[in-house]
Amino acid sequence: MTQTNRNHWVEGASADASIREQLIAAAGEHFSTYGYEKTTLADLAKAIGFSKTYFYRFFRSKQEIGEAVCSQVLGTILETIDEELAKAPSAPEKLRRMLRTIPKMGMELFFQERKLHDVAATSAAEQWESSVHYWERLSEMLRSILQQGRDGGDFERKTPLDELTRAILMAMRPFIDPRVLQFHLDFVPDGSNEVIALVLRSLAP
Amino acid sequence: MTQTNRNHWVEGASADASIREQLIAAAGEHFSTYGYEKTTLADLAKAIGFSKTYFYRFFRSKQEIGEAVCSQVLGTILETIDEELAKAPSAPEKLRRMLRTIPKMGMELFFQERKLHDVAATSAAEQWESSVHYWERLSEMLRSILQQGRDGGDFERKTPLDELTRAILMAMRPFIDPRVLQFHLDFVPDGSNEVIALVLRSLAP
Repeated sequence: MTQTNRNHWVEGASADASIREQLIAAAGEHFSTYGYEKTTLADLAKAIGFSKTYFYRFFRSKQEIGEAVCSQVLGTILETIDEELAKAPSAPEKLRRMLRTIPKMGMELFFQERKLHDVAATSAAEQWESSVHYWERLSEMLRSILQQGRDGGDFERKTPLDELTRAILMAMRPFIDPRVLQFHLDFVPDGSNEVIALVLRSLAP
Repeated sequence: MTQTNRNHWVEGASADASIREQLIAAAGEHFSTYGYEKTTLADLAKAIGFSKTYFYRFFRSKQEIGEAVCSQVLGTILETIDEELAKAPSAPEKLRRMLRTIPKMGMELFFQERKLHDVAATSAAEQWESSVHYWERLSEMLRSILQQGRDGGDFERKTPLDELTRAILMAMRPFIDPRVLQFHLDFVPDGSNEVIALVLRSLAP
C-alpha cells in the first residue's frame, strides 16, 4: 500500500466513523423526544434526512442504533464514576463515590431524559450488548476497588472476591437497573446511602 | 339483649364472615385462572353465581376483593416465616431463615400461581393496604430479630435499628418486591444467598 493509498483509506474510515457518530447523535436526539419503542428505522431516517438504505450502510437494525445510543448514555455514567474515583483518596471512599454516582446519574437520566432512560431500560430487559457491557464494566471497577481495599488493609479478605462483587451489585440493584430504579425514586439518596453504609460495614476487616 | 337475640346476632355475623371467606376463596380461584386486571366485578359475580348486588354487601369494589385475596397470599408467606423463626435457635439463624423464605416463596408463587403473583405485583405498584401491611410486618419481624441479636451479643449495636431494618429490606428488595423479583428469577437462590451472607457480615459486632 502506498502512502497515498493508506491516507485515503484512513480518511475514508475516519469520515465513515464521523458520519456514524453524527447519526448516533441525531438518533439520540430523536429517541429522547419520540422514544425508542415507537420509532421505526424509516421514521428515524426520514427525521434525520437520510434514506433508509444509507442508514443500513452504518447500522444493520434499529436495535443496533439503539445499542449505540445506549452505550453513549451508559458510557457517560462510567466516565463520571472514573472521574469520581480519581478524586477519592482511599478504597472505602472510592466505593462510596462509585455507589453514590450510579443512583444519582440514574435519577438525572430518569427525570431529565426520560425517553433515553427508557432506551436503557429496554437494553436491560433485552440484555443488549450495551447493557451487558455496562454491567461488566461496573463489576470490573468494583472488583478493582475491593482488591485495592484488601491490599491496603481496609477490607476483609475472607469472602471470595467474585462473590463479594456480585453481592454488592445485587444489593444495589434497586438503584442500578433502570427497570427497577423507577420503583425506588423516593429512596434516592437516603435509601441508597443506607445500603451503601451497610455494604461498607460488611467489608470491615 | 336477651340470650336468643345475642345468639342470633352472633350467628348472623359469623355467617356473614363465613360467606365473605367463601367469596374471597372463590375470587382467588377466579383470579388465579383469569387474572385480576382482566376480571370485572360483574365477571366475578357471574362466575361464582352471585349477583353483583350481593357482592356489594361484602366488598365495595373489585380492589377490595383483590386486597383480600392478596392479603391471604402474602399472609401465607408471613405465616411460613413465623414457622421458620420458631425453629431457629439463634438470631443470625432466624435472620437467615426469614430472608431465605421470602425469595423461595416468591418464586413458588411466580411459577405455580403466576396470576396471583400478578395480583401481588399490582398491590405493590398501587400501594394497596395489603402490600403496605406486608412490608410493615416484614419490618417488625426483622426489627425484632435484630434486637434479639443485639441483646444476645450476636449483632453490632451502633447503627440505629430503624436504619438497619430499612437498609436490609432495601438490599433484599430484588427478591421481595414481586414487581422486581421477576427480573431476578435466575438469581434465586445463589444470588439471594450471597446478599444474605453480605447482610450477616455487616451485622458483625
